[in-house]
Amino acid sequence: MITLEIATRIANGVLAEGARRGFAPLCAVVLDAGGHILCLVRDERASIHRPQIAMAKASGCIGLGVGGRTLAGMAKERPTFIGALSDIFPNGCVAAPGGVLIRDAGGKLLGAVGVTGDQSDNDEACAKAAIERAGLIADTGD
Amino acid sequence: MITLEIATRIANGVLAEGARRGFAPLCAVVLDAGGHILCLVRDERASIHRPQIAMAKASGCIGLGVGGRTLAGMAKERPTFIGALSDIFPNGCVAAPGGVLIRDAGGKLLGAVGVTGDQSDNDEACAKAAIERAGLIADTGD
Amino acid sequence: MITLEIATRIANGVLAEGARRGFAPLCAVVLDAGGHILCLVRDERASIHRPQIAMAKASGCIGLGVGGRTLAGMAKERPTFIGALSDIFPNGCVAAPGGVLIRDAGGKLLGAVGVTGDQSDNDEACAKAAIERAGLIADTGD
Amino acid sequence: MITLEIATRIANGVLAEGARRGFAPLCAVVLDAGGHILCLVRDERASIHRPQIAMAKASGCIGLGVGGRTLAGMAKERPTFIGALSDIFPNGCVAAPGGVLIRDAGGKLLGAVGVTGDQSDNDEACAKAAIERAGLIADTGD
Repeated sequence: MITLEIATRIANGVLAEGARRGFAPLCAVVLDAGGHILCLVRDERASIHRPQIAMAKASGCIGLGVGGRTLAGMAKERPTFIGALSDIFPNGCVAAPGGVLIRDAGGKLLGAVGVTGDQSDNDEACAKAAIERAGLIADTGD
Repeated sequence: MITLEIATRIANGVLAEGARRGFAPLCAVVLDAGGHILCLVRDERASIHRPQIAMAKASGCIGLGVGGRTLAGMAKERPTFIGALSDIFPNGCVAAPGGVLIRDAGGKLLGAVGVTGDQSDNDEACAKAAIERAGLIADTGD
Repeated sequence: MITLEIATRIANGVLAEGARRGFAPLCAVVLDAGGHILCLVRDERASIHRPQIAMAKASGCIGLGVGGRTLAGMAKERPTFIGALSDIFPNGCVAAPGGVLIRDAGGKLLGAVGVTGDQSDNDEACAKAAIERAGLIADTGD
Repeated sequence: MITLEIATRIANGVLAEGARRGFAPLCAVVLDAGGHILCLVRDERASIHRPQIAMAKASGCIGLGVGGRTLAGMAKERPTFIGALSDIFPNGCVAAPGGVLIRDAGGKLLGAVGVTGDQSDNDEACAKAAIERAGLIADTGD
């Protein structure tokens, strides 16, 4: 189970990583295994609906049980399917890198991170770095 | 008319079939002819939004009166049409195998099954097996 | 964590208890700790939107972390507050007995049950009996 | 304008104040003047839909331009009006103490805080303490 303390460390770690790399201002959310928010942070310079995008990246991953890169591949092959998930998942489904599952060393699903603000690959790199710095496994769907 | 007893037998039969074949953890729903849930079961290892997907597979089928394989074909030829159904059907519309109509020997529509968790073809195989084991006709839209 | 096996035993137990007591046809849902369906059963003679009511009873309880009887008390004292929860909780909030939290012997929250079909007190009695028969603690909010 | 740094200090300050006073586990959100999330934190022991409640407290305040205590008074006198706001505000409207406007020394509106988890008066006390500790003015609607 992810505590708020760990979630905060991950969310802040995402934004710190983005700043270090000179990325655009980011928004990051950390969800628990049930898909509920533990911590959400948005750089005040990031656009106003970034929280919705971060939520839909993380929620899409945890809702289907796969990383954002897998979702992005499915969106290319089966756009109607992913479009339908976007309609029926309670927080939508943004199928793109930057949605990353959090697992423990044994592979157990603990939660998910959603990052948005820069290019998807960059969003994902920040999520991955922050999850690993917290001693957990980042499942990007790679 | 499908009773809860039959619906339960079908839903449980879907998951048992999946376990027998070594498929990923499944979620299955059985709807009556009015499109309303009689029985929904989700393996505790299946991801959290599987109930929404199972519902949208079964609801899409019963909403348009065709099996999921027919819906999947329509989604390829007319993606905008199926995308619109996804918006206007109250439980969405996932156009994929695994949505299966239940008919009696005379062809009368009794309800629908929605299965998700593994690949769509595998989901459908479990639905078909469980419906037939209950002595009813599985209309996959094949 | 509640498995599907336990959830099924509880959901079926609710309807069996209702039949034993001669109650009206019931609908019962069992949610996991994240508020997601494990098992939902509706007697084919129960009205069509009972699943929504069962969900809103169980979801309201788990969303706020209290039993349905507590919610019902709040609804009397603070109707606007409970009305607002009904708008913002993803599955609504029906504040009535029949929404019951499932806890383990140590008090840890494992999930929730929602029952509807007869009078709320009767719905609750069936939920309580089925949870206890499964060796778990029923927190009705009493 | 409230930066993420200040928002984080306030949100964390709310939870720290709650812990100091021995309150139930809390959830706190800080919105900017446009009503968009800067920071949301939920104690992992707080119930799962607390983020929705925190949002609806803060959004209600900023949406109408008054503190939560004023909203609570209006809810008593004009329940239908507040019920309607709950329907039409995009994040709902929970009219209760714990929704607090953030102002600067000149009275300019900078954002809002929403806190939930304990009794409303306690939620509000934590919001007030954290806003003031950040050198800003807490407008509770008192």
